[in-house]
Amino acid sequence: MRNPRRLAELTWPEVERALEQDTGVILPVGSIEQHGPHLPLATDALIAERLAEGVSDAADLLVAPPITYAYRSRPLTGGGSGFPGTTSLSGETFMGLVKDILSEFLRQGFKRVVVVSWHFENQGFLYEAGELAHHEAPKGSTLLVFERSRDQLTPATMAAVFGDDFRGWDVEHGGIYESSIMLYLFEHLVLADKIVDDRAKRRVWYEIFPTPAEVVAESGVLTSARGSSAEKGALLWSEVVAGLTAALARDLPKAPGAPTLGATA
Amino acid sequence: MRNPRRLAELTWPEVERALEQDTGVILPVGSIEQHGPHLPLATDALIAERLAEGVSDAADLLVAPPITYAYRSRPLTGGGSGFPGTTSLSGETFMGLVKDILSEFLRQGFKRVVVVSWHFENQGFLYEAGELAHHEAPKGSTLLVFERSRDQLTPATMAAVFGDDFRGWDVEHGGIYESSIMLYLFEHLVLADKIVDDRAKRRVWYEIFPTPAEVVAESGVLTSARGSSAEKGALLWSEVVAGLTAALARDLPKAPGAPTLGATA
Amino acid sequence: MRNPRRLAELTWPEVERALEQDTGVILPVGSIEQHGPHLPLATDALIAERLAEGVSDAADLLVAPPITYAYRSRPLTGGGSGFPGTTSLSGETFMGLVKDILSEFLRQGFKRVVVVSWHFENQGFLYEAGELAHHEAPKGSTLLVFERSRDQLTPATMAAVFGDDFRGWDVEHGGIYESSIMLYLFEHLVLADKIVDDRAKRRVWYEIFPTPAEVVAESGVLTSARGSSAEKGALLWSEVVAGLTAALARDLPKAPGAPTLGATA
Amino acid sequence: MRNPRRLAELTWPEVERALEQDTGVILPVGSIEQHGPHLPLATDALIAERLAEGVSDAADLLVAPPITYAYRSRPLTGGGSGFPGTTSLSGETFMGLVKDILSEFLRQGFKRVVVVSWHFENQGFLYEAGELAHHEAPKGSTLLVFERSRDQLTPATMAAVFGDDFRGWDVEHGGIYESSIMLYLFEHLVLADKIVDDRAKRRVWYEIFPTPAEVVAESGVLTSARGSSAEKGALLWSEVVAGLTAALARDLPKAPGAPTLGATA
Amino acid sequence: MRNPRRLAELTWPEVERALEQDTGVILPVGSIEQHGPHLPLATDALIAERLAEGVSDAADLLVAPPITYAYRSRPLTGGGSGFPGTTSLSGETFMGLVKDILSEFLRQGFKRVVVVSWHFENQGFLYEAGELAHHEAPKGSTLLVFERSRDQLTPATMAAVFGDDFRGWDVEHGGIYESSIMLYLFEHLVLADKIVDDRAKRRVWYEIFPTPAEVVAESGVLTSARGSSAEKGALLWSEVVAGLTAALARDLPKAPGAPTLGATA
Amino acid sequence: MRNPRRLAELTWPEVERALEQDTGVILPVGSIEQHGPHLPLATDALIAERLAEGVSDAADLLVAPPITYAYRSRPLTGGGSGFPGTTSLSGETFMGLVKDILSEFLRQGFKRVVVVSWHFENQGFLYEAGELAHHEAPKGSTLLVFERSRDQLTPATMAAVFGDDFRGWDVEHGGIYESSIMLYLFEHLVLADKIVDDRAKRRVWYEIFPTPAEVVAESGVLTSARGSSAEKGALLWSEVVAGLTAALARDLPKAPGAPTLGATA
Repeated sequence: MRNPRRLAELTWPEVERALEQDTGVILPVGSIEQHGPHLPLATDALIAERLAEGVSDAADLLVAPPITYAYRSRPLTGGGSGFPGTTSLSGETFMGLVKDILSEFLRQGFKRVVVVSWHFENQGFLYEAGELAHHEAPKGSTLLVFERSRDQLTPATMAAVFGDDFRGWDVEHGGIYESSIMLYLFEHLVLADKIVDDRAKRRVWYEIFPTPAEVVAESGVLTSARGSSAEKGALLWSEVVAGLTAALARDLPKAPGAPTLGATA
Repeated sequence: MRNPRRLAELTWPEVERALEQDTGVILPVGSIEQHGPHLPLATDALIAERLAEGVSDAADLLVAPPITYAYRSRPLTGGGSGFPGTTSLSGETFMGLVKDILSEFLRQGFKRVVVVSWHFENQGFLYEAGELAHHEAPKGSTLLVFERSRDQLTPATMAAVFGDDFRGWDVEHGGIYESSIMLYLFEHLVLADKIVDDRAKRRVWYEIFPTPAEVVAESGVLTSARGSSAEKGALLWSEVVAGLTAALARDLPKAPGAPTLGATA
Repeated sequence: MRNPRRLAELTWPEVERALEQDTGVILPVGSIEQHGPHLPLATDALIAERLAEGVSDAADLLVAPPITYAYRSRPLTGGGSGFPGTTSLSGETFMGLVKDILSEFLRQGFKRVVVVSWHFENQGFLYEAGELAHHEAPKGSTLLVFERSRDQLTPATMAAVFGDDFRGWDVEHGGIYESSIMLYLFEHLVLADKIVDDRAKRRVWYEIFPTPAEVVAESGVLTSARGSSAEKGALLWSEVVAGLTAALARDLPKAPGAPTLGATA
Repeated sequence: MRNPRRLAELTWPEVERALEQDTGVILPVGSIEQHGPHLPLATDALIAERLAEGVSDAADLLVAPPITYAYRSRPLTGGGSGFPGTTSLSGETFMGLVKDILSEFLRQGFKRVVVVSWHFENQGFLYEAGELAHHEAPKGSTLLVFERSRDQLTPATMAAVFGDDFRGWDVEHGGIYESSIMLYLFEHLVLADKIVDDRAKRRVWYEIFPTPAEVVAESGVLTSARGSSAEKGALLWSEVVAGLTAALARDLPKAPGAPTLGATA
Repeated sequence: MRNPRRLAELTWPEVERALEQDTGVILPVGSIEQHGPHLPLATDALIAERLAEGVSDAADLLVAPPITYAYRSRPLTGGGSGFPGTTSLSGETFMGLVKDILSEFLRQGFKRVVVVSWHFENQGFLYEAGELAHHEAPKGSTLLVFERSRDQLTPATMAAVFGDDFRGWDVEHGGIYESSIMLYLFEHLVLADKIVDDRAKRRVWYEIFPTPAEVVAESGVLTSARGSSAEKGALLWSEVVAGLTAALARDLPKAPGAPTLGATA
Repeated sequence: MRNPRRLAELTWPEVERALEQDTGVILPVGSIEQHGPHLPLATDALIAERLAEGVSDAADLLVAPPITYAYRSRPLTGGGSGFPGTTSLSGETFMGLVKDILSEFLRQGFKRVVVVSWHFENQGFLYEAGELAHHEAPKGSTLLVFERSRDQLTPATMAAVFGDDFRGWDVEHGGIYESSIMLYLFEHLVLADKIVDDRAKRRVWYEIFPTPAEVVAESGVLTSARGSSAEKGALLWSEVVAGLTAALARDLPKAPGAPTLGATA
């Protein structure tokens, strides 16, 4: 019943054993942010945690409780703070939060530490937190920070999902990409009948304070989610998980001879 | 399938409607901290969230995602930082985290905001965060901060649970109180066969840096969990939930005439 | 004329000699906070300093100048910020202040450092300051933090002082406990004719922002001071001093063979 | 002789007059960061300031002194901190610096404030600084933050500059893009004979702490600068300046009827 | 017996009455810093508090408890951190401390607030604290910050005290100026037989890290205290008190018609 | 064409070579602050940088890009924040900025690091930044901080420049001292016809919040600039440069046998 990969559900002697066999830890980072009228506020946190779980066996990682509240939603990539429910941290608080948690993992003796984020705006702040934690870390540990959760997708997948109407990753917020993945992973949390074909009246490449009304869609989606499906989600997800798995295999190897979690049980 | 009380699972238009009918929000705060060889690290966060859910209908509150990582574990009340898996925030980071979240709820327009914590060490820092958030809050909002999750229990319950061997709330960490509640609420996460009859060799009423070995039990429990049961947990839980419910009814009334969440659906 | 235990009154060569013979240092922490119509604002700081002096000979400690301004007064345990004269620090400032001072003592070479506080609200923040200072401390030093200034009193003393009307330590603010001790230690600073039999109309176990009028007594006392006397104060004081002295004797021993301050003069 | 657009060279009465006629202010942000063996450390700051100057007449802006020291160089986009001369600020310091300066401009009465950055890593932190400054700003001001200094270039320019070997903007550090612009704008600061055809042995899409040697080129350039020329630089520059000018014309209009700086002289 | 000017000794109703009659408050700021082999560590705090008391009647001010721990001792003006007993705050902590206290006075309703410092190194930080507190202050209050406790002395006094051997105020640390005043005000705290005729071998006008031994005298005095006397102290003191009194009379007038503290008793 | 002393214009391999031969680095610190109707806002930054350049050959130092934005202008020494164009940092931000940059130089391997400031108000904060950076510095490095840019001038120069009308260094802001130096160094940036014979109606030796109008001159100059000339500037400048050069020669020697920058080219 318990999930032996979830740090939250383990007892301390179990973590002690994990440390002995060089099991690592992965920290999912999301956000609480509007994702249009059809997706839940925790979309980013839910996906980030599921992604961490998806790679945890192959990379022998414990999955830490996700950071749900994260850096601010920005108008051009998340709709901004004007939508009810969007609940954000300042840059300073968010960096401190991530830094403290990473420092704690490193202090406990984890040699293999990973951060994976599913929220565009967390970029930069995650790097700084990683830098600060690494600066104080004991020798011999490796820290990987995935500010983005994937590299480029294959052309075949891009074509299958977006056809010829891909408008850029920065506006894939509540759009076909996230909606399809949510339909695949958390169908019961998607209000499929609320999916709208909406987008902002105007798209800009710089920030304007105060935010003009025309650069944010009324619905909150930055690009249309029309055409989302669980099938597309499955396709996307397998590629995302595979990409992250490959990266971990290459840059976060276990100590030679260390058994995998559970192997000695 | 969706839980209409969980902020995480709602869409922004649903939060907008909740605001219109004066539904409030409750923020559970726990910790990631060793709780002996039989309870999971997230014990505090799990209980805090369940408690928030337990009062949410009566008080018409949305349940915000819990703060899982919280203030440091202290040796005398939680075993301290020496146990693998205990993952803590500094006082400054923790205060900033709580303050930012509360400020966001108040900014969004929630008039009824609650914090409920199930981790002894969060005290003081939670108050300061509440003070800072309230200081900047729009007029007309009420913020309740439950640094402890209950007032005194009834003598009957005390006797039923502890017999005549109650040693004080400060050491009820991983003991019969929390273990019984976990058996009642999350039986599948309790390693019942790992329950030990342990306690520190010595009990002190002040802090010593560095921590002497004899003031922390090897197992991490601060008092024996022997005799814990789901029945005791049910008894305790009903009293805890009732106490919090009564407090909210008295000090967090809804605006006159405001419908309850879902009542207009 | 000079007090050889007061750090403030010593010259640096005298401190140098104290360090050589392993004399320690104790930092009293109080507050500037209303204590009803009969006690001075500095009640906590005055008592804390006197307490430090009371144990300084037995434990061979220098008494550092007290921290007078400290963490906020809270409505339920000190009346809150609404009373003229109550002058408080934020949590961040207070932690920084205590941390800096402790770090300085440790840097100078003190191996035996003590903090003793007489202000309920300082709890938690004092621990964090101690943790931060200890984290950077040279090896071989011991730091004791007394967030409370005493353990439980004996039943005999409790009965003699409170009779059967003890309402709890959290509300012993400006009440019979502090008033008696002030009458014993600083009779000239007590306006005995202003002692009132007052208390808040309502007592709650959680914090409410903004503070409802009925949870704070108009006079500022949290419980009645009627019946206070210097005799009760003497009784209480001897027990408080003895308790702290015993704790220091046990957990803050001097280096073997080190002479006591003044012994070599 | 004086440059009437440079805030640094003006007297305060001249700034007062500028405020009266709704002249705005633009803050260039660069970095002090290695740019390979052929470009100077201040490359980013030099270009940013020149860009600000390039749009200042059309948009009627004063050019503020540039922020030269900025956020950290990252290994994958700037070579990281291992190169002598790379001199960076922490995230917290950099945000505070930008926020303070913007707040000062807004406090002085500037209604039209612009930030333009030429350093990839400043992203996110610049947004936060803008958010914080705007939050406290007097009503009626507009703040534009250009975290990137241009939108997409035209296909014709891309082809003319890169041919078919464009590897992505994130690695255009010390490469043909910046080298050409530097040859065009600051030819005397380019060591053309030091241009190397170098790049990192391996390219990754996530951060690794500590940085593996193979992800950073020994020379510090992230992509080859071979083929750079002042002509290409001129082509690029005209497009960059035009893009920024158009953005300012659209989103930072002057108050109706306000004269342009110098027009009344 | 009580001192009606000492905020520490008053009850809150007495402060309330002081506020009603526009009585102000003065905050003395000192340091805990070596002052040679003959003066106590708290020299600055002792003098600052006495000075505040000396002007309190004429200016109708309450004297707040002094800030004893203050900004760092610098080698060239106070001997630096190498002397046992010197116990300092960082710049950040010190500013926060002063700012919080001033903000509290202003929040309570004091319209006339004064800071007087007797420690060279506090300069700058005191100004910043004053600026920050004033920035948030209610309208109608005046805050005076005396970073130095006096203007120039009269030539007659200079000649009487120093003869023709005055070496500059920056090195008057533990010298004839402070020693004479201490002999006048606190003779019992001066070890007159320890007065040395010492000074640093070399005097520099800039800071060197690490501090070379020759710029700090072994005794800690920066200039000779030979020739100090209580008579000189009395002369100096009367001029210092008179200067501060005059400044307060001019720039901190009471509201027209407001009675002086005690006048209505 | 390139200036081989300007860090900004060097490539990283050139800095690497400088480190190898023990070349140091000097950081000029100025301000953006009104300097009356005739001097540019960047007066302090311009002079500071030129001064650093003036001593760089003799002391073998690279000149780092100046800190242009610095600590607040104060009314009594710079006119304060009320003049358009005066653009300041808070104390906290300014300290962080200087500290980060110094730490970076020390981390890169510079053993000889200098700060030179031409802005009265930077004092104290510069010291703290130096202290913090030095505290973390690798062993073997020396850091010199010139909070003032000169010691006393010779009587002959004082007489030649000021005649018998010298009013004190604290008010030499935009007066004959700075104006003459600017005429000598940057004549094209001085509006000589705007020089006024102005000063504040009243001079005080303490800070008053809010600033009374009579303590700041309308023109912004703190003392008259009448009589300024390039000749006087030349005289002053040679003495200032000589003084700083001598200080560096004495307290910042190069490692024995290390060649001077460029000597091996």
